[in-house]
Amino acid sequence: MLGLHVTTSPRWLERVRQNLDEVLIDHAHCEKKAARTAMNLLCAYDTRRELCREMTEIIAEELEHFELVCNLLSRRGIAFRSQQPSAYGKRLNQLVRSSEPERAVDRLLVAGLIEARSCERFAVLRDGLDDTELTDFYGELFESEARHHTTYVRLARTFAPDQVVANRLETLAAAEAEIVVGDETLVRMHS
Amino acid sequence: MLGLHVTTSPRWLERVRQNLDEVLIDHAHCEKKAARTAMNLLCAYDTRRELCREMTEIIAEELEHFELVCNLLSRRGIAFRSQQPSAYGKRLNQLVRSSEPERAVDRLLVAGLIEARSCERFAVLRDGLDDTELTDFYGELFESEARHHTTYVRLARTFAPDQVVANRLETLAAAEAEIVVGDETLVRMHS
Repeated sequence: MLGLHVTTSPRWLERVRQNLDEVLIDHAHCEKKAARTAMNLLCAYDTRRELCREMTEIIAEELEHFELVCNLLSRRGIAFRSQQPSAYGKRLNQLVRSSEPERAVDRLLVAGLIEARSCERFAVLRDGLDDTELTDFYGELFESEARHHTTYVRLARTFAPDQVVANRLETLAAAEAEIVVGDETLVRMHS
Repeated sequence: MLGLHVTTSPRWLERVRQNLDEVLIDHAHCEKKAARTAMNLLCAYDTRRELCREMTEIIAEELEHFELVCNLLSRRGIAFRSQQPSAYGKRLNQLVRSSEPERAVDRLLVAGLIEARSCERFAVLRDGLDDTELTDFYGELFESEARHHTTYVRLARTFAPDQVVANRLETLAAAEAEIVVGDETLVRMHS
């Protein structure tokens, strides 16, 4: 799905069921961090008009989702609080090369892979949870994550030739698969 | 105006007239930085629902203004590019205390003062430039900066008693007046 190299194991869903509050809190943090990532990209490449317009849209959508998840937490009486994040984002970001335009390509592709994984996980939650409020919720969010993935990959192609981007995406997707499978210390949206 | 301790001297407008392109480019950077500041505040105080909602609105408005200024630059054939910023923001941010909740109060009040100064400067441009496109433009942006100022000051009061916030605002406004008057090395929106 969306170029990901591994699908989520049934074991992840089982762990989520047993730690649902933790994962919902993590989800709120993920939406906030996705908005911040888009803002960082806008600021880093502020002379690129198309990128700035797309980041503006993504920021608005992620912050709307953040608000939706916070509302969901409120309705369930779960206090939103800071939480140890999974190592996933940090480990992916360590793969970003330091010189331009490789750095731009990598930052966009990493952001796109995180969106792809969120999308895949939302589908697992949509299809696997018993709670109607949650299955509806993840069904609704699913589509926008897929769209964001596509946007990030398309923007990466404005920094390097299509084939270069496709090859790098393959490499990063392989790394993402190792990272997401290897991390079981915490129960998180990307663990 | 909006609690500012000094009004802009006619000399600033004269310098802007002679360096209009520079100031318009700076204005685009200011809108982008205002959006980033609001995002940083949202991330720093993410458990505060009202603050997060207000920051979400401000982020959307500032990014809309960023797009409007970029469009204006395009129409005028001015290339948006990186630029040495004035020392204004950096010097104001140096006044932010390090421990909470003083830090939150200061960050919000500094953001509010920058909005107040933008508002005051936009009024100077609206009333003092000859170019109708620009006077209309700054007339339209004026109102939202005033609103943002009010929002920031109100949010500061959710971290400390009203009188404490009022006193600190006076102190920071006095510092802002010294900073904005003292800096004439560059021609900028806040110089």
